[in-house]
Amino acid sequence: MNSFGSLIRLTTFGESHGKAMGGILDGMPPGVVIDMDIVRHHLERRRPGSGQGVSQRKETDDVEILSGISPVGETLGTPIGFIIRNKDARSEDYAGYTGKYRLNHADYTYHRKYGIHDFRGGGRASARETVSWVVAGSIVRQWLWKARIAFDAKYVATLDAMKAASEGDSVGGIVTGKITGLPAGLGEPVFDKLQSRLGAAMLSINAVKAFEYGDGNRSARMKGSECADRFRIPHDPLTPFSSNHCGGIMGGISNGMEVNFNVYFKPAPTIMRPMETIDTEGKPCVIEPKGRHDSCVAIRAVPIVESMAALVIGDMVRLHQSYVPLERYPEGYDPGPIL
Amino acid sequence: MNSFGSLIRLTTFGESHGKAMGGILDGMPPGVVIDMDIVRHHLERRRPGSGQGVSQRKETDDVEILSGISPVGETLGTPIGFIIRNKDARSEDYAGYTGKYRLNHADYTYHRKYGIHDFRGGGRASARETVSWVVAGSIVRQWLWKARIAFDAKYVATLDAMKAASEGDSVGGIVTGKITGLPAGLGEPVFDKLQSRLGAAMLSINAVKAFEYGDGNRSARMKGSECADRFRIPHDPLTPFSSNHCGGIMGGISNGMEVNFNVYFKPAPTIMRPMETIDTEGKPCVIEPKGRHDSCVAIRAVPIVESMAALVIGDMVRLHQSYVPLERYPEGYDPGPIL
Amino acid sequence: MNSFGSLIRLTTFGESHGKAMGGILDGMPPGVVIDMDIVRHHLERRRPGSGQGVSQRKETDDVEILSGISPVGETLGTPIGFIIRNKDARSEDYAGYTGKYRLNHADYTYHRKYGIHDFRGGGRASARETVSWVVAGSIVRQWLWKARIAFDAKYVATLDAMKAASEGDSVGGIVTGKITGLPAGLGEPVFDKLQSRLGAAMLSINAVKAFEYGDGNRSARMKGSECADRFRIPHDPLTPFSSNHCGGIMGGISNGMEVNFNVYFKPAPTIMRPMETIDTEGKPCVIEPKGRHDSCVAIRAVPIVESMAALVIGDMVRLHQSYVPLERYPEGYDPGPIL
Amino acid sequence: MNSFGSLIRLTTFGESHGKAMGGILDGMPPGVVIDMDIVRHHLERRRPGSGQGVSQRKETDDVEILSGISPVGETLGTPIGFIIRNKDARSEDYAGYTGKYRLNHADYTYHRKYGIHDFRGGGRASARETVSWVVAGSIVRQWLWKARIAFDAKYVATLDAMKAASEGDSVGGIVTGKITGLPAGLGEPVFDKLQSRLGAAMLSINAVKAFEYGDGNRSARMKGSECADRFRIPHDPLTPFSSNHCGGIMGGISNGMEVNFNVYFKPAPTIMRPMETIDTEGKPCVIEPKGRHDSCVAIRAVPIVESMAALVIGDMVRLHQSYVPLERYPEGYDPGPIL
Repeated sequence: MNSFGSLIRLTTFGESHGKAMGGILDGMPPGVVIDMDIVRHHLERRRPGSGQGVSQRKETDDVEILSGISPVGETLGTPIGFIIRNKDARSEDYAGYTGKYRLNHADYTYHRKYGIHDFRGGGRASARETVSWVVAGSIVRQWLWKARIAFDAKYVATLDAMKAASEGDSVGGIVTGKITGLPAGLGEPVFDKLQSRLGAAMLSINAVKAFEYGDGNRSARMKGSECADRFRIPHDPLTPFSSNHCGGIMGGISNGMEVNFNVYFKPAPTIMRPMETIDTEGKPCVIEPKGRHDSCVAIRAVPIVESMAALVIGDMVRLHQSYVPLERYPEGYDPGPIL
Repeated sequence: MNSFGSLIRLTTFGESHGKAMGGILDGMPPGVVIDMDIVRHHLERRRPGSGQGVSQRKETDDVEILSGISPVGETLGTPIGFIIRNKDARSEDYAGYTGKYRLNHADYTYHRKYGIHDFRGGGRASARETVSWVVAGSIVRQWLWKARIAFDAKYVATLDAMKAASEGDSVGGIVTGKITGLPAGLGEPVFDKLQSRLGAAMLSINAVKAFEYGDGNRSARMKGSECADRFRIPHDPLTPFSSNHCGGIMGGISNGMEVNFNVYFKPAPTIMRPMETIDTEGKPCVIEPKGRHDSCVAIRAVPIVESMAALVIGDMVRLHQSYVPLERYPEGYDPGPIL
Repeated sequence: MNSFGSLIRLTTFGESHGKAMGGILDGMPPGVVIDMDIVRHHLERRRPGSGQGVSQRKETDDVEILSGISPVGETLGTPIGFIIRNKDARSEDYAGYTGKYRLNHADYTYHRKYGIHDFRGGGRASARETVSWVVAGSIVRQWLWKARIAFDAKYVATLDAMKAASEGDSVGGIVTGKITGLPAGLGEPVFDKLQSRLGAAMLSINAVKAFEYGDGNRSARMKGSECADRFRIPHDPLTPFSSNHCGGIMGGISNGMEVNFNVYFKPAPTIMRPMETIDTEGKPCVIEPKGRHDSCVAIRAVPIVESMAALVIGDMVRLHQSYVPLERYPEGYDPGPIL
Repeated sequence: MNSFGSLIRLTTFGESHGKAMGGILDGMPPGVVIDMDIVRHHLERRRPGSGQGVSQRKETDDVEILSGISPVGETLGTPIGFIIRNKDARSEDYAGYTGKYRLNHADYTYHRKYGIHDFRGGGRASARETVSWVVAGSIVRQWLWKARIAFDAKYVATLDAMKAASEGDSVGGIVTGKITGLPAGLGEPVFDKLQSRLGAAMLSINAVKAFEYGDGNRSARMKGSECADRFRIPHDPLTPFSSNHCGGIMGGISNGMEVNFNVYFKPAPTIMRPMETIDTEGKPCVIEPKGRHDSCVAIRAVPIVESMAALVIGDMVRLHQSYVPLERYPEGYDPGPIL
């Protein structure tokens, strides 16, 4: 339940106010040189306090690689274990929350599910979890870059995050993502379609409420004659179509065009106003939010979107490669008929 | 790759113009009475030719149950094998297609992936595949109904499907789904959030381009102060909130409210006009579509949406039940300390 | 629970006295020519009544392929669905069994687990289930044969099966298996070691009580100086060692030598004598066995052992191939630095 | 590939001479009190240098729990991340090994598989890996103890380990295991039989060459009339049979009797004599073993056997509980017919 993917598989652990976050990235092929500066670069993009409208939690997110990468920085083909210590978890900000369900958080549902809950910062439901996703994704994308597969996402502002923050409010936002360099043929019918896997990945990110690819929800208001992608003539395998309504995916399989998609984020759940809620006994009470909170979670979700896309594509690449035709072995050797 | 779910798992097979479609539904608990008329009812709703704007393929979709259900209609706890013969596959309609890639279909991507492709009707990429999903979903929903969990979906028209059909064109559409009776606590953090699983399920359906739940993509244009769901006071575990912006899911776990979501379909890919395309050698050519084709695939996707939702929820129910506390066994017996 | 394997995955269904047995073989690569006569040959080897000491159930085991193989016999890369109708299930032989637990069968445990049980012939616990395993294994081995990987098993008699049968008794037996042509490098550390997967496969077969590979249980009585496998000098990658104590597997990974293993079968559970047992209410009663039963199940288990081995190796081959290095795409194209 | 189990799942990482070993134990139910002294007790039993005939590596194996257990020692239902630092890895002992394949180790096969290998101490193939298994198993068994399910294993000496050690040689050995308190009904047909899962677990342990349960390989030399387990009359659900030839498992499902099994270990691979081998270029060379090595690996494998058994049973318990009948919800509420 805390694992993502099949052949490239990330398994994570960590509560936001526990000792550490971390994970195990399994399935990375051997011999890939990993530059930890690239990992740190993406962690910095995700870090609270790194942009406008985002929370001021000052964690440097030092990642420690414990296995799977040799001293000279090369993957060994073995699982990559890593941890990020929780250094700056100011639990005192949450002192007033104990036993009270914050609005729009997972406190109520976690408590109903498990009968036990860490009211400091959301425990496992916190977006702090995504630090591990960025570590893993930032490793996988370095492997995929060898094939010139790249991940690119951008924040698209909808409302003014700074203004909302000054009013103690928060805003939603959109992250638009694209995957370039993808060869045709990735994606597995019928239940592991590329869009299913990408959609599940994006809908795993905290605060995401919608996912679309290609023409997306506009498709529902289009005619078939408007949205057909025609083949480029003469045929060009690297850019086979002259338009991209389909978002680079046909029948669940990449067609060689750029894959593009949008991810819609709701406003950050915590707003700086007193909230009427209930406690674990069902009694009404009020929470006065403190602490550091993003006013727009979409801003620093950009590297998270890229990382989850990289994990999906890495898995799909390994699944696809497993179809490599089996050669006669050894060449020229004939042991006679099969029976 | 042709399996969906973990503890309630559907595995399917079948090409649209092969001998039969079918599947194995694994994980159904024993002792559930299954009414095959209910299964047939939903198959009829999905059947081509059963509504306006849908194709005229006349298959009665007789499903044969081969195992897992006793002669008196009770599940045995063993896998339920079933087949639906392909009786009315008019392959002659596809005679002109051989070696030519239909626009907006999976012909090109399947061929690039596998190096071999059945050009008659799309093979495994055909929506014919979903007949097996409806069989399985219609079994699972009868089990879940014992707990009063129900699945309800509706087609929301956007453009005039009849008019488009008369012009040889096709249109997109929306299916809005809801799940009622769901107790709080279903859904598994972190990567098996309820919305991730539902999203992946819906994005597996042919022609689906977008998925949203609760406020969905509108969330991205909202403020936090506008979309907070407040607890009903006094607390009511069966309807705990006074609004449902979150769509019944908080932190990936059901909160006891109705779960609601929208699924966006692109127009049916085949339109009744000559299409310029290429053949398997990359040469330009023209396809003259024949045969029976939906002008709006969303219409008969309604029971498919319900069925996929039922498969997801069934899996989540069994996953959740696996947390049932382990009791001392036997009661009153004390063998002393553990070491 | 009714699926075996990951990338080559067999999912099965069917009760011994239901309508049909069958399965779905997923993950076979496209373009492999399948000779159904080879499948039928192995089914015939497994068939009751095909040898001495085996039961006289007269089923011809006609397998019908429903998908995944083209009309000219080539795999499509799509799941292979197949069924075998139960034609000769003489349920009247079991009439006296209803509600009584046969000794050494799974009647008692199935009933305790599911609260419902088909007392005719064991339902899903019957060795009839293995007919599907032989169909699947006989397909997979034809693919592996392209790489000259072959499966060979033999029955090793311990006691006289004919004599025991004449006394209404039954006997145990051994099947010794080997896999030839296996390249070095197959098998996945740490929990998917080749011997783990093979062991699990063999221990799935009805009546199997033990599995060993290489020197097996004799190893426990050996010294390290006695059982070291030395490298052949000069080095020969195709036969790298001068002995094979390890059974072709080192650290869970094939070393290029023949893989060999033994599978130990207990005597057939049904013997032709009145058996004192209890019924579902816990009351003592007697069963008078009728029907056709093997006196030695190991004899016709030979193709089952081969088939399960083929399923394991097929999975391991695809897993291993998924490590194929990812090439720069397209060649010569340099889009600049990754960041 | 580095994960074991489905609902109770252990994922591990770590090379023997890297920074740390560790893992993530996923699926532990919430609210179980964990005594870390019990974990440390079992780690101590496994520790090199803790018994006769075992290596003198002096690691205290301090385990650090990073998540999933509250400050007061209660599980949260979230994944339990843990690490054990490698403090005493005397890599200088391995200096002479670089580029040379040790006999009977996985050096050759790992190198063939991955094209890269850490020659210091076997990397991931080292038995050091099992430290994480014992941590996880020692947590899981505390949960299962609440139901009085217990794990008991013993080393059975075959040859004199001390004498062999004094001669620079090593010996094999047997570990006999039993599981008590197991209710009837655990184990999943057809491919997740209890013996399949146990066998795969035991065959994952370094140096294991054979697994048997109940009468085991002796079964192959028995008659059916000798090995039938008869029901105790009157029926006693807690000890339903008067003998236990079947080892507590019938048809893959526990029958309520004690489950018992044997695990056969080959001699420790490293012996203190010069070994003729080859290097990575295929050239003959000699290795002079140094360092600390067990002469009999079976001795300290005892808690490993118990731990792996606990992981298997924990998984089976959760799988079985997921069959808990779904109750009508809410009681007394009738929304009318399903359609």
